[in-house]
Amino acid sequence: MSFHTIIWLGHAIEIIDQTLLPQQKVYITLEDPLQVFEAIKELKVRGAPAIGVAAAMGMALGAMKIKYSDKDEFMSKLNDVADLLASSRPTAKNLFWAIEKMMVIAKSGDDAPDKIIKKLERKALQIYEEDIAINKKIGENGAAVLKSGETVMTHCNAGALATAGYGTALSVIRAAVEVGKDIKVIATETRPLLQGSRLTVWELMEDNIDVTLITDSMSGHFMKDGKINKIIVGADRISANGDVANKIGTYNHAVVAKENNVPFYVAAPLSTIDADTKCGDDIPIEERNPIEVREFMGTTSTVKDVQVFNPAFDVTPNRFVSGIITECGILYPPYIKSISRVISENRVENGID
Amino acid sequence: MSFHTIIWLGHAIEIIDQTLLPQQKVYITLEDPLQVFEAIKELKVRGAPAIGVAAAMGMALGAMKIKYSDKDEFMSKLNDVADLLASSRPTAKNLFWAIEKMMVIAKSGDDAPDKIIKKLERKALQIYEEDIAINKKIGENGAAVLKSGETVMTHCNAGALATAGYGTALSVIRAAVEVGKDIKVIATETRPLLQGSRLTVWELMEDNIDVTLITDSMSGHFMKDGKINKIIVGADRISANGDVANKIGTYNHAVVAKENNVPFYVAAPLSTIDADTKCGDDIPIEERNPIEVREFMGTTSTVKDVQVFNPAFDVTPNRFVSGIITECGILYPPYIKSISRVISENRVENGID
Repeated sequence: MSFHTIIWLGHAIEIIDQTLLPQQKVYITLEDPLQVFEAIKELKVRGAPAIGVAAAMGMALGAMKIKYSDKDEFMSKLNDVADLLASSRPTAKNLFWAIEKMMVIAKSGDDAPDKIIKKLERKALQIYEEDIAINKKIGENGAAVLKSGETVMTHCNAGALATAGYGTALSVIRAAVEVGKDIKVIATETRPLLQGSRLTVWELMEDNIDVTLITDSMSGHFMKDGKINKIIVGADRISANGDVANKIGTYNHAVVAKENNVPFYVAAPLSTIDADTKCGDDIPIEERNPIEVREFMGTTSTVKDVQVFNPAFDVTPNRFVSGIITECGILYPPYIKSISRVISENRVENGID
Repeated sequence: MSFHTIIWLGHAIEIIDQTLLPQQKVYITLEDPLQVFEAIKELKVRGAPAIGVAAAMGMALGAMKIKYSDKDEFMSKLNDVADLLASSRPTAKNLFWAIEKMMVIAKSGDDAPDKIIKKLERKALQIYEEDIAINKKIGENGAAVLKSGETVMTHCNAGALATAGYGTALSVIRAAVEVGKDIKVIATETRPLLQGSRLTVWELMEDNIDVTLITDSMSGHFMKDGKINKIIVGADRISANGDVANKIGTYNHAVVAKENNVPFYVAAPLSTIDADTKCGDDIPIEERNPIEVREFMGTTSTVKDVQVFNPAFDVTPNRFVSGIITECGILYPPYIKSISRVISENRVENGID
């Protein structure tokens, strides 16, 4: 990799500012939880797994910066940090998963604040390292679904930039290429914020993987013409029944894929699965600033005050999903069973959660 | 209307430069066929019916500018004008339809060039006036499918700007609003060239019709949520079996509409129907400059030399089309029969064609 998405500096977090890619490769330092909150909210760091890692590091950073006279005050202020970070974005499960992991560590045992701070730092680093390992495993597990000579379409960026490294959907592609398969990628630009044209194209070209850019609504044209053999996307939250919240536009691709018999895979770590959310209708969908639709990288395309809808995600019902590629293998329908099984096995392996 | 798309000046053509809308409302004068060719190619005038009118006027203008010593030379040079204009864009049927109409006039009878020039000018004006009348009739015929309180989604711009006036899809909406129905519109921005955000939003807001802008791939999210009751789009070419070539992205919307039981209508004049093209697979699809996908109104979003696919149109198979709204009523499946019937009735009414 010629870049890193996020690293822990011991006293701060360094991220690549994804809003400036690919024109500028700028690393910025986040010194306190408010800066982490803003970086997540403004999509300087984005992608469900990367948001999870940033939130974990943000909790560790926040703990270090707390001024306290006793443990009660420390814990109260740590709770405030958790609430702040949790309010940055509403849809990605990994954000809440990471914050909860950190709070469980903070609350367990009778440790003094100093010791809790050390434990939180270790946990944040563990979440970071595990994310990389999990993504590699997702790649290995998913590579088998891709045959040499195939073209894979992906939407948004579920790549190294969306994670601590390697990516989820793009990890599958990377793993297939690494074992010598000839794989071509079609990347959708992903309006309004262009994560496809800005990030996926850039990171695949950095890795010398063959990528072609299309606009979002061209996907069906190429599926119908037989130019797309598989679709692999990431996920922001997967409900207990296998419905998938992912970047707006995913649902259109999935419906058109089914019509054209193009297998549609979702690649995501188990931390993206929200076993407490029964189905996709219960997943909160973030509505973002209208200006993102009225503009394109700062250029206004339309009448300045036109009404706009700007949901950041949509929900793809489970019947459109051919398989969910996780670090524990590929889950197949009926998802209510395969998800429940993998979650309970994972709980047993890792203790409580 | 607070603007005009195209008018005949007697010795030249005036068009509104659609590449500059909505930021600038600039009218430009086309003085010769080469300028008409360039204006069509560069989308300064676009939309199948408007291209037809521009081509007809371009033929009249070309005839006026020809320097000739005898009729043979005149006819030979007129043929060159026809070939030039026909090479501007490959998909819109109306372009070829209009040029053919003009050549039939030029070739019929024993007229001297002077008289042919007069007849061509009259025919161009007739095509212009008929287009407006046809669009009004499309609106009247289509308005019945819209109920008060409904929200209609449209893709690209099939409005006044795509025709001599009123539009096709937007004429249906205008007619429904004019008879007092409460209609809201959702306009897709229509990447890469943003005819939705730049043109449809602008012309509906000029008419005080309630319009909300979304990105192309949000359509399914709002269909699934029940926020879109009908879809109406225009067409660039309709084959004998009712397959519809229209702006890239139309096919995705149509497939997702069927999945969600949202009726999907196409509004187009009979001149858009190509009875000689059996099915959509036979319609040539224009591939445009990659820069349109890499850029957005002059701003590069991606890696400068990324590979790009940029088809300007896609084909929606007839089974996704609920009805085709024409000036002669709404055609319903099976289209092979309804199209054949309306075309033969129209031939009888208008002589040969």
